[in-house]
Amino acid sequence: MPSSWGKIYRVSTFGESHGPSVGVVIDGVPAGLPFELEEIQKDLDRRRPGQSDITTPRDESDTVRVLSGVFEGKTIGSPIALIVDNKNTISKDYDNLKTVYRPSHADYTYQEKYGHRAHVGGGRSSVRETIARVAAGAFARTILERELGITTVGWVDSIGEIDSHISESNYPRSVQEVDSNIVRCPSKEIADKMERHILDLRNEGDSVGGTVKAVVYNLPPGLGDPVYDKLDGDLGKAILSIPACKGFEIGSGFAGTRLTGSKHNDEFYTDSQGRVRTRTNHSGGLQGGITNGMELVIKAAFKPTSTIKLEQKTVNSSNEETTLKARGRHDPCVLPRAVPIVEAAINLVLIDAYLYQRSLQPEWYEKWVLKR
Amino acid sequence: MPSSWGKIYRVSTFGESHGPSVGVVIDGVPAGLPFELEEIQKDLDRRRPGQSDITTPRDESDTVRVLSGVFEGKTIGSPIALIVDNKNTISKDYDNLKTVYRPSHADYTYQEKYGHRAHVGGGRSSVRETIARVAAGAFARTILERELGITTVGWVDSIGEIDSHISESNYPRSVQEVDSNIVRCPSKEIADKMERHILDLRNEGDSVGGTVKAVVYNLPPGLGDPVYDKLDGDLGKAILSIPACKGFEIGSGFAGTRLTGSKHNDEFYTDSQGRVRTRTNHSGGLQGGITNGMELVIKAAFKPTSTIKLEQKTVNSSNEETTLKARGRHDPCVLPRAVPIVEAAINLVLIDAYLYQRSLQPEWYEKWVLKR
Amino acid sequence: MPSSWGKIYRVSTFGESHGPSVGVVIDGVPAGLPFELEEIQKDLDRRRPGQSDITTPRDESDTVRVLSGVFEGKTIGSPIALIVDNKNTISKDYDNLKTVYRPSHADYTYQEKYGHRAHVGGGRSSVRETIARVAAGAFARTILERELGITTVGWVDSIGEIDSHISESNYPRSVQEVDSNIVRCPSKEIADKMERHILDLRNEGDSVGGTVKAVVYNLPPGLGDPVYDKLDGDLGKAILSIPACKGFEIGSGFAGTRLTGSKHNDEFYTDSQGRVRTRTNHSGGLQGGITNGMELVIKAAFKPTSTIKLEQKTVNSSNEETTLKARGRHDPCVLPRAVPIVEAAINLVLIDAYLYQRSLQPEWYEKWVLKR
Amino acid sequence: MPSSWGKIYRVSTFGESHGPSVGVVIDGVPAGLPFELEEIQKDLDRRRPGQSDITTPRDESDTVRVLSGVFEGKTIGSPIALIVDNKNTISKDYDNLKTVYRPSHADYTYQEKYGHRAHVGGGRSSVRETIARVAAGAFARTILERELGITTVGWVDSIGEIDSHISESNYPRSVQEVDSNIVRCPSKEIADKMERHILDLRNEGDSVGGTVKAVVYNLPPGLGDPVYDKLDGDLGKAILSIPACKGFEIGSGFAGTRLTGSKHNDEFYTDSQGRVRTRTNHSGGLQGGITNGMELVIKAAFKPTSTIKLEQKTVNSSNEETTLKARGRHDPCVLPRAVPIVEAAINLVLIDAYLYQRSLQPEWYEKWVLKR
Repeated sequence: MPSSWGKIYRVSTFGESHGPSVGVVIDGVPAGLPFELEEIQKDLDRRRPGQSDITTPRDESDTVRVLSGVFEGKTIGSPIALIVDNKNTISKDYDNLKTVYRPSHADYTYQEKYGHRAHVGGGRSSVRETIARVAAGAFARTILERELGITTVGWVDSIGEIDSHISESNYPRSVQEVDSNIVRCPSKEIADKMERHILDLRNEGDSVGGTVKAVVYNLPPGLGDPVYDKLDGDLGKAILSIPACKGFEIGSGFAGTRLTGSKHNDEFYTDSQGRVRTRTNHSGGLQGGITNGMELVIKAAFKPTSTIKLEQKTVNSSNEETTLKARGRHDPCVLPRAVPIVEAAINLVLIDAYLYQRSLQPEWYEKWVLKR
Repeated sequence: MPSSWGKIYRVSTFGESHGPSVGVVIDGVPAGLPFELEEIQKDLDRRRPGQSDITTPRDESDTVRVLSGVFEGKTIGSPIALIVDNKNTISKDYDNLKTVYRPSHADYTYQEKYGHRAHVGGGRSSVRETIARVAAGAFARTILERELGITTVGWVDSIGEIDSHISESNYPRSVQEVDSNIVRCPSKEIADKMERHILDLRNEGDSVGGTVKAVVYNLPPGLGDPVYDKLDGDLGKAILSIPACKGFEIGSGFAGTRLTGSKHNDEFYTDSQGRVRTRTNHSGGLQGGITNGMELVIKAAFKPTSTIKLEQKTVNSSNEETTLKARGRHDPCVLPRAVPIVEAAINLVLIDAYLYQRSLQPEWYEKWVLKR
Repeated sequence: MPSSWGKIYRVSTFGESHGPSVGVVIDGVPAGLPFELEEIQKDLDRRRPGQSDITTPRDESDTVRVLSGVFEGKTIGSPIALIVDNKNTISKDYDNLKTVYRPSHADYTYQEKYGHRAHVGGGRSSVRETIARVAAGAFARTILERELGITTVGWVDSIGEIDSHISESNYPRSVQEVDSNIVRCPSKEIADKMERHILDLRNEGDSVGGTVKAVVYNLPPGLGDPVYDKLDGDLGKAILSIPACKGFEIGSGFAGTRLTGSKHNDEFYTDSQGRVRTRTNHSGGLQGGITNGMELVIKAAFKPTSTIKLEQKTVNSSNEETTLKARGRHDPCVLPRAVPIVEAAINLVLIDAYLYQRSLQPEWYEKWVLKR
Repeated sequence: MPSSWGKIYRVSTFGESHGPSVGVVIDGVPAGLPFELEEIQKDLDRRRPGQSDITTPRDESDTVRVLSGVFEGKTIGSPIALIVDNKNTISKDYDNLKTVYRPSHADYTYQEKYGHRAHVGGGRSSVRETIARVAAGAFARTILERELGITTVGWVDSIGEIDSHISESNYPRSVQEVDSNIVRCPSKEIADKMERHILDLRNEGDSVGGTVKAVVYNLPPGLGDPVYDKLDGDLGKAILSIPACKGFEIGSGFAGTRLTGSKHNDEFYTDSQGRVRTRTNHSGGLQGGITNGMELVIKAAFKPTSTIKLEQKTVNSSNEETTLKARGRHDPCVLPRAVPIVEAAINLVLIDAYLYQRSLQPEWYEKWVLKR
């Protein structure tokens, strides 16, 4: 069950939703970097269940501990192991799932793939696995901010049919701005509508999907590799591997396919500080898979939560037809909690591209980091 | 410039658009498999420039040769090197590009990333690099078809504003069906409209984007890994790393985010042969990143070709503003040639997942391959 | 600080000698396999400090816990995290090492490589890191034994100038045989001599080196890959990366270079059960990097422990010359504890080769595992 | 048949001894580096068959061509494909090998591993595969020399029972010195003895083994990773994966196991230029898997060539006993040709460690490369 990624900043994760702990080992971190556990806890708190009325009432503090790789507040170059213990694991909720496949869950596919499975919680397919990504991504965020001045901000752009209609010039500039409401949609008015919609569906025992948009500010040009490891592809994989994600766009995305080249091309100009910029940003910050110094803009689609309290038809492990009505505590909508996960995914891709680029061209490091 | 991928079926590519050759080395291929070079040539012919009126007039036969890994018509387990020589490389077309950055191309980003570049052709960012993917993917296709009965079919689903409106029940079943016209849209009537639109834009010196849809038939359940190497993510990366790709959807994609869970969930049932199936296929064939035995359905967005003959504003390598009018021979629309590239990308992901699954659970191989 | 290895059975380790814990994450384990924690504890007990009079008096129970990947006594296919807490960490022993480089230790090289280091304990260069290898290797041993009938046995073949003179026909057949004395040399008489020698040197404040030999019984032919990932090379790396290892031989090793081809070649014959065997085994069980079904035989050289209580000349981090006399508790000879580490290294290489081979040729699995 | 290696400087090889070509793709090379094909040809000429009376008379020019990655004499950051065509492939020499397993060759193990094989030439197990390593290593050598001032020199240290007895103070300082005779042993007198011995054995139809020693000058401290990717282990693997290699030592090797710690430890001092050095070099240039700035010293054992003209007993693919007398043209002793292969292996490991270190600590690059 390959659970590792990254060429340089190498992340390996472990832990089931109902086992003792989930964790992550981050290898490839340079020595001597400040390590602030509270920065990691901050993003875990933004991800944790039970954080508001519109998330699952399953309450977990998700407190992170560091087992290795840090000495006297600084990294020492060795693998950093971070661990979060599972506290709130009511296994009896899952007894009826021993044999019944939940629709649009991974029960049936696990059974066929492994020929054997743990029926409690969903194991590794649970969104609980994303704790590891958020922890590793949160630490990456601190490095990217300190060394490159990069800021990554995601927000809920739509819930069901409710669209935020936030235009490029109004993109939020900080996590604080987005976190000003529990939906994590920067428009207060739309956020209220979204919140009511989520609550209505929860009361009906139903769920709803939506989209997250994210932008990265202050990226230097030159990150990403132009063939198979294009940043487009690496970001796509990082985000499409988040549970419930069904779509990914970079820059103009699907809408851009309707334009002509003369409308879509991003013309270059030189700004007042002599920097090369583009007038439009249909490229979404990437050309040939490499950052061009403009804002990176991506969008991700999340399906409605599969676990609903309404009765559904399904089959059991003897291939007999049956019905299922979920018990337990679940998110009626994953979007608010998806925001820090998307940000973490982006930061994990960027930190790896950054560390790799330092190997490739030390002059680049001199120009974009030392002389910043 | 990492140019390798795959855990087991390991693909490494090389070659610039204006160098002597492009090629691919495929490692991890089991021994004793039939190797038919003509099957690979067939897909390369579907990808090659100059194949019709609506592709670039740059004419290349793209004839493939095998340098290793095959003996008396069968694989011997060693790396298979495939090579295509470049014939039609008129470098003088590129002299003016030594210093001018083409809008929405990778000229500027290469310069910043590498501090040095070959200005002819676009080097590795050229779509010519996809020869390697198509060759490796075409061989994967023959293995998947023979051992698992898998068929992968892609088609042009839209060009600019023209949508094919092909519903799930009318998805094409074979490559031949799609290749019945030069646009590769299975609806003859819509294909004619698309063709005229492309020709009009070419005559204006402009270009246009569109979407490719693809479906995979006869997939067994159990392929793909449920955490970071979810098949969703691996397919997303494989397709988003194709030049000009700006978006990717699996199953219900962005449209699915507008549904409620009760509408979106795919209820299971048992079909007349006792197989587990789902009534709907919003999941697009994947649950928890693993195939569930339903059709795999993906969609990819391709932006309009960046090279257009209209004058555009840009800057040069001294950061001075200038204008550019492209010369040379280019596709007014990449979509028809993108179809075999998307298919190859899918088959490369599937072959790797298949070979990996054989290691993981030999009983699965017994059940889904030997007893097929 | 790359700390991961394996193509399929992927091992990632973490933890410093003086941090809270050391651990290992094993990914790529098939689901449904019995998991017996006591089997892992058994090998950890063979490795642990304080196990006898001739090892370091630093007493650690090294009790292993499992954090993930196991449910109701069986693997579930997800990463298995194993952890051992550090109990006996007297940091003040290390205060004087903040600035002084210990001769033949990694203090100076860490300082130059990372520009920053934790001076306590030796961090990742400590032999404590091998806990992770032994734990992962012990679990591999159980799989290899159950599925293939493989037995791996190592022993101390020499200490300083004292050679065990154990000939091929007297190689020990089981771990129990080797563990019958604290030196882990199967000849009781020689073991007593070795023990006295080690105690003498310990009393002088000095240390001594030696060699470990290991043999693997019941290997099927076909494991290992014939180019860069030859089993010779993979075993060599696994063993040469154990702290203090300075040499590695497979089969005839350095002595074989003195022979002619006609003496060195291993002639094939067919045994009474119709199996292909060789009369001699200079190849040490490998031909072209692949197992040939004969016993695998390797030998490893371990230098004398670097930490000694005698005064030594050295320099400090300001490059000033100084002297050092080690305090703390250390092994006068690493050999007895190296035996389970060498066995673990071998088993880690073999399990990975075995799982990879299942992907490559399912007929091989049928022949050598199912029909065994 | 995994044929790739390296974390950053990534090498992938292909080609059988009797196919059209052997080749190598080098990925991860920074852009803008001088690329001199003649430097690569030089090392290939040192490796090629037919270079002298004591190598195989199979005459091959082994002329290398570059297919990609180079433009106007400089690297452009894209994969560099190098290719050597096979000219002298007399397949009929191999007809009798279709069914008979050659003793101490990889015929039997290939058959069991792959269930299918090409009987001509030995395929990938042929020493012809090392062309790829020598080519990739020769280019690495030019980078290491230019950027770090590193020199790697190997030589034949023994042939059969004839030892060169070259002491540390007489180690050769340049390739030219070693290449002054066809044996590649820097002592003219011993070289003559070795040459006569090889010729005698060739006339008898027999073969002989020997050892190669190699030293690397001017290494900066800080290369190599201290856990599993210790430079000891990476060098060991690189060299033990060369055909016919049976043993590897770093520094004091097996002889060092006989010393006490007080004799073996390398005491530090500060030299007249203020650099940290050690009085002795039992460590062989590595401490904790990382270079310490002293000379790197390794030794490798090569068995006698398996192909001999004397009759040998063996079995065939029906497991029937038979005899074999080799025809064809073979080296009576691989040692002289092994020297450039060992050097290449070392340089491939060092270039990868160097490029990785640039990512890890840019200050290191500043100190050891820019300020050199």
